[in-house]
Amino acid sequence: MTHFLNNYLGGQWQSGAAAVHTLTDPVTGETLAAAGGAAAGLAEGFAFARTEGAKALQALTYGQRAAMLSEALKVLQAKRDDYYAISLANSGTTKADSGIDVDGGLFTLGYYAKLGTALGDARALTDGAAAVMSKDQLFQSQHLMVPARGLALFINAFNFPSWGLWEKAAPALLSGVPVVIKPATVTAWLTHQMVKDVVDAGILPPGALSIVCGSSAGLLDALTPFDVLSFTGSADTAAAIRMHPAIARDSVRVNIEADSLNVSILGDDALPGTPAFDLYVDNLVREITIKSGQRCTAPRRALVPRGVLQAVGEAVAGKLAAIRVGNPRHADTGMGALVSRAQLDSVREGLALLRQEASVMFDGSAQPLLDADERSACVAPTLLAVRDTDAATAVHSHEVFGPVSTLIGYRDSAHAAELAHRGLGSLVASVTSDDDALLARFAHELAPSHGRVHLVSPAVAKTQTGHGNVMPASIHGGPGRAGGGEELGGLRALAFYHRRSAIQGPATALEQAKVGTTAYGY
Amino acid sequence: MTHFLNNYLGGQWQSGAAAVHTLTDPVTGETLAAAGGAAAGLAEGFAFARTEGAKALQALTYGQRAAMLSEALKVLQAKRDDYYAISLANSGTTKADSGIDVDGGLFTLGYYAKLGTALGDARALTDGAAAVMSKDQLFQSQHLMVPARGLALFINAFNFPSWGLWEKAAPALLSGVPVVIKPATVTAWLTHQMVKDVVDAGILPPGALSIVCGSSAGLLDALTPFDVLSFTGSADTAAAIRMHPAIARDSVRVNIEADSLNVSILGDDALPGTPAFDLYVDNLVREITIKSGQRCTAPRRALVPRGVLQAVGEAVAGKLAAIRVGNPRHADTGMGALVSRAQLDSVREGLALLRQEASVMFDGSAQPLLDADERSACVAPTLLAVRDTDAATAVHSHEVFGPVSTLIGYRDSAHAAELAHRGLGSLVASVTSDDDALLARFAHELAPSHGRVHLVSPAVAKTQTGHGNVMPASIHGGPGRAGGGEELGGLRALAFYHRRSAIQGPATALEQAKVGTTAYGY
Repeated sequence: MTHFLNNYLGGQWQSGAAAVHTLTDPVTGETLAAAGGAAAGLAEGFAFARTEGAKALQALTYGQRAAMLSEALKVLQAKRDDYYAISLANSGTTKADSGIDVDGGLFTLGYYAKLGTALGDARALTDGAAAVMSKDQLFQSQHLMVPARGLALFINAFNFPSWGLWEKAAPALLSGVPVVIKPATVTAWLTHQMVKDVVDAGILPPGALSIVCGSSAGLLDALTPFDVLSFTGSADTAAAIRMHPAIARDSVRVNIEADSLNVSILGDDALPGTPAFDLYVDNLVREITIKSGQRCTAPRRALVPRGVLQAVGEAVAGKLAAIRVGNPRHADTGMGALVSRAQLDSVREGLALLRQEASVMFDGSAQPLLDADERSACVAPTLLAVRDTDAATAVHSHEVFGPVSTLIGYRDSAHAAELAHRGLGSLVASVTSDDDALLARFAHELAPSHGRVHLVSPAVAKTQTGHGNVMPASIHGGPGRAGGGEELGGLRALAFYHRRSAIQGPATALEQAKVGTTAYGY
Repeated sequence: MTHFLNNYLGGQWQSGAAAVHTLTDPVTGETLAAAGGAAAGLAEGFAFARTEGAKALQALTYGQRAAMLSEALKVLQAKRDDYYAISLANSGTTKADSGIDVDGGLFTLGYYAKLGTALGDARALTDGAAAVMSKDQLFQSQHLMVPARGLALFINAFNFPSWGLWEKAAPALLSGVPVVIKPATVTAWLTHQMVKDVVDAGILPPGALSIVCGSSAGLLDALTPFDVLSFTGSADTAAAIRMHPAIARDSVRVNIEADSLNVSILGDDALPGTPAFDLYVDNLVREITIKSGQRCTAPRRALVPRGVLQAVGEAVAGKLAAIRVGNPRHADTGMGALVSRAQLDSVREGLALLRQEASVMFDGSAQPLLDADERSACVAPTLLAVRDTDAATAVHSHEVFGPVSTLIGYRDSAHAAELAHRGLGSLVASVTSDDDALLARFAHELAPSHGRVHLVSPAVAKTQTGHGNVMPASIHGGPGRAGGGEELGGLRALAFYHRRSAIQGPATALEQAKVGTTAYGY
């Protein structure tokens, strides 16, 4: 009998729903769990979160809510092995790749617990200093940030059932805003188990954390004007969300992370044989294969000086050839499966599209899979190279969500930046070079179209946090195609869950309004 | 022959368009000016702004751009009398009301010129301190804010052809982002004249400031992913904008200010005969009649303690009765016209709706108009009072954009706050009381659903800036029904026109990236 992912709404686990969706092991095809169809009681469940959940959370201080996050972290840490097992079974990931999701989520939760502790004994934030608005200084304006009067609905992607939950829920709960999580069905088991463990531990007040599995029908209809919505997923769904009346008409605040054609740039100083060149090759191989390329931040476009494209291609191909693909339960497997056969089909379609304008420099599919067959969702890594840099278009617009990257030869740094911008907005651009001045110039060039610019030199070879890793101290999101959103970034994340208001009034009243607040500063 | 409002795009005044829309004097009905239909050359004009305009603006420092704003201000100040004349003719406003628009715009322009001067010799902003991301401190994250790689399109409302232009354009131009302004056709003459005067003075580089008058057809289609759009107007148009592919699909950043049912609250300490009571009455009368109630910030809902509702109503009615309505050219006219007959019809329809649940406490329509007749767009002030506080709904949802306010009796402060929230998001709530503790409590209660909370006590009777006046030091916007936007707020306004990016890298490279930047702080 499979595990049923029941919904938790209104402080109660719902039972009795019929199984509509099934979750499977992407390597073996085994059925693991099931989820229901359209959720019952959404309006009532959401209302309970907005009233009971919010009231209980907002009665606490930031410090007290931070302590709750720490308690939740302890509960989750004690069950880490369970989560790795679910990740292995449901996401088909190696232990290292499971760790990126599971431990990445726990790290981010712990990060916000620590940040929140520093906010201490306050229930609202002051934003900036008071502005004096009268000659006698008696009339002033003080901006406050107060917790939103609504709930936070998260509609998440399949690739990070743990991290995707906690990177959003930690700042929301710290802000005093109740959370409803709707994980992508295909990998919802891990999210469900984590929510269940935290709920069962009785750490959070009723209504603070709810979960809806299976169908997303009716979720947006249940939103009201002071709610917020954070979505990670496809551009098509993102557009449908933006057009929904809750957003278009009622101005529900929305954060979107959609497609992204991230770039990884090799500086033109980094010739073959230099440490920077080797570093670039190593990191590119890592980024292509981590989680089988199923990270929103993976470098889909590798921009390298024209003259070294062949050398980069050969070096990357050589390392990719050494990585065995297959069942992550096999000790020699370096790269596991995609999350589903549907994703496998999507990657194959995308590859076919890219191959219309790019040549194959490496194709690992000739090598047999380890402990897996062609009925699995395993796919080998592929390295492509565009044939005509300036004519290529699909490479800048079509995201292949798998272990695929495409080399693009550039003429000079200005050309590289121009090519990077052709992605029309991405989550991250990285640059590898041994020239700090070149890195600094690229930072300014790339910043307008990338939410994060990751600079790597041999001096930080061991300490740099990785092109694709999202660190909670830095914002995560990007303009344009990437959705225009912004998450994390330390305390910056709290702004989404607060309302900023300019309080104008007598200085004496503003002094009283500042009691019980602390500064929003970073 | 009427004045033709030709478009300025691609650094050129366009001629030869046929007149499609006409602008009239709302008092006399005289035709004043005309504007064309769908603009020609939008794609080329927008591209010119994004390339030539942005390149020239972003080659300058904040300090240099601030100096340009100061120069533009001088040009405009020299022609103030012309603007007052246009305002009188086209908006039907008294001299005082014209000043709110004309001088309000100039004041805001000067405010940003001064703020920008302080940013000095920099071309980008640092956002917060660097976060150390490695134990050896070599790898760090520094957030930068760089000017957006696109243009700023402003689609503006009819009530502030001057202020609405400059409150948006000043922070955009200071940020180095080129502006395209589309004023509401009915009062576009003043916007057009101001743009023309600044363009003719040759202060701004070609492409930095463009204007499209008449039809808005094609404007949104001409947007590309890195552009930003700021809209002030109706909730219907706002929803249509959010659903347009440029926003829904390409994530063009959008700021919206739509409807708003602002509240003005009288504290329960302020009994008749107290200075706070008198202050409340005086200010409510002023807010109802300023610009004939055509301010987005006007208090549509006046929340007063049940026991004093009758006393407030009588006091307000007494003062409203003393205000003569009519042609602003007549020396005794205290309140001019609405901007059009269409607005007059809209106000009358709204009044009929409100009267289904509210009684009339004052209706000035029996008094004859001064130097105007019933063919004009003049309308007398009306004061209503809801009959059943808890049953009333239209008063919380339907904005009558004219000299109309509705009294609502509340039981206690918690009830008052709950009634205020029923507006589902407004631009401003004001509270008048002689009790600082009460004012401070209301600040926290009202902040989640209001972009600004304006506190008034007798101590600041002379210095407070007014419920409805938007001061550039405070943010302007509100959640939910008010559109979810945020403008002004000092340097906070610059964030909309910049892209924030986390620059991760070696400390040595980040130091170089910080050259030529200054701190974004307020």
